[in-house]
Amino acid sequence: MSTPLRVAVLGCGVVGSQVVRLMQEQAAELTARVGAPLELAGIAVRRPKRHPDLAPELLTTDAMELVTRADVDLVIEVIGGIEPARSLILAALGGGKSVVSANKALLAEDGATLHSAASDAGADLYYEASVAGAIPLLRPLRESLAGDRLHRVMGIVNGTTNYILSRMDETGTGFSEALDEASALGYAEADPSADVDGFDAAAKAAILAGLAFHTRVTAADVYREGIANVTAADVASAKAMGCTVKLLAICERTSTVDGGAVAVRVHPAMIPRTHPLAGVNDAFNAVFVEAHAAGELMFYGRGAGGAPTASAVLGDLVAIARNRLAGARGPGESAYAELPIQPMGDTVTSYHVSMDVADRAGVLAAVATAFAVHDVSISTVRQVGRGDEATLVIVTHVAPDRALSATVEDLRRLDFVRAVTSVMRVEGQR
Amino acid sequence: MSTPLRVAVLGCGVVGSQVVRLMQEQAAELTARVGAPLELAGIAVRRPKRHPDLAPELLTTDAMELVTRADVDLVIEVIGGIEPARSLILAALGGGKSVVSANKALLAEDGATLHSAASDAGADLYYEASVAGAIPLLRPLRESLAGDRLHRVMGIVNGTTNYILSRMDETGTGFSEALDEASALGYAEADPSADVDGFDAAAKAAILAGLAFHTRVTAADVYREGIANVTAADVASAKAMGCTVKLLAICERTSTVDGGAVAVRVHPAMIPRTHPLAGVNDAFNAVFVEAHAAGELMFYGRGAGGAPTASAVLGDLVAIARNRLAGARGPGESAYAELPIQPMGDTVTSYHVSMDVADRAGVLAAVATAFAVHDVSISTVRQVGRGDEATLVIVTHVAPDRALSATVEDLRRLDFVRAVTSVMRVEGQR
Repeated sequence: MSTPLRVAVLGCGVVGSQVVRLMQEQAAELTARVGAPLELAGIAVRRPKRHPDLAPELLTTDAMELVTRADVDLVIEVIGGIEPARSLILAALGGGKSVVSANKALLAEDGATLHSAASDAGADLYYEASVAGAIPLLRPLRESLAGDRLHRVMGIVNGTTNYILSRMDETGTGFSEALDEASALGYAEADPSADVDGFDAAAKAAILAGLAFHTRVTAADVYREGIANVTAADVASAKAMGCTVKLLAICERTSTVDGGAVAVRVHPAMIPRTHPLAGVNDAFNAVFVEAHAAGELMFYGRGAGGAPTASAVLGDLVAIARNRLAGARGPGESAYAELPIQPMGDTVTSYHVSMDVADRAGVLAAVATAFAVHDVSISTVRQVGRGDEATLVIVTHVAPDRALSATVEDLRRLDFVRAVTSVMRVEGQR
Repeated sequence: MSTPLRVAVLGCGVVGSQVVRLMQEQAAELTARVGAPLELAGIAVRRPKRHPDLAPELLTTDAMELVTRADVDLVIEVIGGIEPARSLILAALGGGKSVVSANKALLAEDGATLHSAASDAGADLYYEASVAGAIPLLRPLRESLAGDRLHRVMGIVNGTTNYILSRMDETGTGFSEALDEASALGYAEADPSADVDGFDAAAKAAILAGLAFHTRVTAADVYREGIANVTAADVASAKAMGCTVKLLAICERTSTVDGGAVAVRVHPAMIPRTHPLAGVNDAFNAVFVEAHAAGELMFYGRGAGGAPTASAVLGDLVAIARNRLAGARGPGESAYAELPIQPMGDTVTSYHVSMDVADRAGVLAAVATAFAVHDVSISTVRQVGRGDEATLVIVTHVAPDRALSATVEDLRRLDFVRAVTSVMRVEGQR
């Protein structure tokens, strides 16, 4: 049996405390699986007094001192946020220590800097826990599917918004009531913007797109719309056409540009209830992958929470520990393809548009013309009610997003269109 | 860029031909992902004339000569069966060549010999394609979940039987009609026994259990029942209680023995329609994993077919090629836990029993006594019809399989029980 590998843990919140607990509870198994004991070298926390259950000699407030100590081999970063996490990871890698991080925001903003520091140091940087919590997803993308060509990665990667949308679908309630309920249950944070406005999902989409298409993608490359404007009427309209509303992270390899491009977006969308993602409810996450040879795959599980996230962190810890013992490195960044990012306007999708119209002769013809002017072909038209209450629901065939949004602008200007009450993309039609 | 790595492919049937095609089509991507070109060194086939589309200089009928050639670095075995596959893999590993195999039967019968040859040679043995085709499953179990404790792995891992059971569920047809339909569509082989009698699923269950519980498990350790005796009445009875019938491979870590044991079994079972596996239909596969920290996970996709299986083979090929370039080895066999295999009689499950009974006073009391004598507790009783046509449907709480099967034997002997028409295990109740 080899000499112990010493592990520093940065952060001891919801995830960090579970990492420490599991490392202690499963010490014997981890030793057997790694081939050497994993020893806690120290835990960096802000307020040591808040952790009376941990051995005081392990606690430190000086994270930078901890990651640069000579007796630390491996570092786990579960602080989150950009700084000081970035400086700490760079210092650790600079000292030749391999790192496990759960930090989606940092990876999505500045993954390239971290990867290049890891590569320079011959160290590992693993981050399975940064996307979809416990679900093994990054390793399958980075390794299992390394011999295949991916077309699309489409996922529900934010549990808070999926809980809210599931409630809206089940009960017919509006967005703010469902958000209040999520807050009361602890599914939504005091400031829910990161989840509700899609920032969290966008960071994860950037990470997924980068791995799937071997291209550097940052959060700024991701088109983003949150769910705050999704109404009970949208959800009801989705139901009427056999769909449900989900906040999707969609990463696509497109061929509209010579040599291909990558399109990455996060927005609410209607998907058919027969789609495997439609049945993913509450705080669960799932990611649907379409590949040339493998066909359709789906990965499902808990996307957040202390223990599930810690499971992913520890899986990575075992991997970097094995690599360290073998004097080897796992797969590093793969960004050889260097594909351009496709602007959202060029992305091909389809729209569901619902509008209140005056019920008079020629309305449908004029509406149809507004679509035709922009070369948008209509798939289905449904008229609900008659007379003053007429509602027109139109679903288009796929077209560039630019043409679709220009069409909606034109519709809003037509004088017999009283209101465009719902505009939402439709995805997952197979 | 490094010098090319040279790859020998053994077998060029449904899977092998797709491996060769994809290696050629995706040569540029594979080179970028590996860091060196992958060159086809040769393809071993039985009848070269059957492959007019392949360069004749690549084809050979002498597989042993091919795997021992000095200019071969990596070997892909997609012949299947025990021999000559085992001798060829051992010869390749003996020569220090890393191997990718899709051979579930061989891995499940004699994995230990292969693993130990790989370990002695410092070479890799990867076999993602051997279970659940394209679905990344073995790597997640072996690596992503290496920091967690698995409780149960339960999967639909045979597409032929899942197609048959899906048809029986959809149309109410009997087993033989559904089998005929599967044969006509090419989903079932001329001799369907390997699928229908559960041998294929049992081999996969052995591989999954070994990885999940760090213990050597062979196909002989797996309790096995096929689906040939599943009747239209069973399927109807499952429907009546909100269930569907699936052939499940179930690998469990149990605590009935001191220090724990591994229980592995393949049999048809009723599962609630609300269980994520219930929606997995036709030839699709899915594996549901329950882990201590990660919670519930599911992996879904195509479990068979040339291209999907080739995707898994090529993912492994990229991994062993990267390892070779780095002078490293991936994780080898992990069998440190050495848990005993639990006999089926000790395995805890629940039964659905349906019987035709005489409708007279005291029947239910006598039936209930038959269960009580074996300490089997009854969960629900349903009586269908009256008079001469009375049918009693009983679902038990969980109990050792030995007690459940002894109860059924006793029921068959009761004189007012005209026939025990259906006995099936019930799983997945959460």
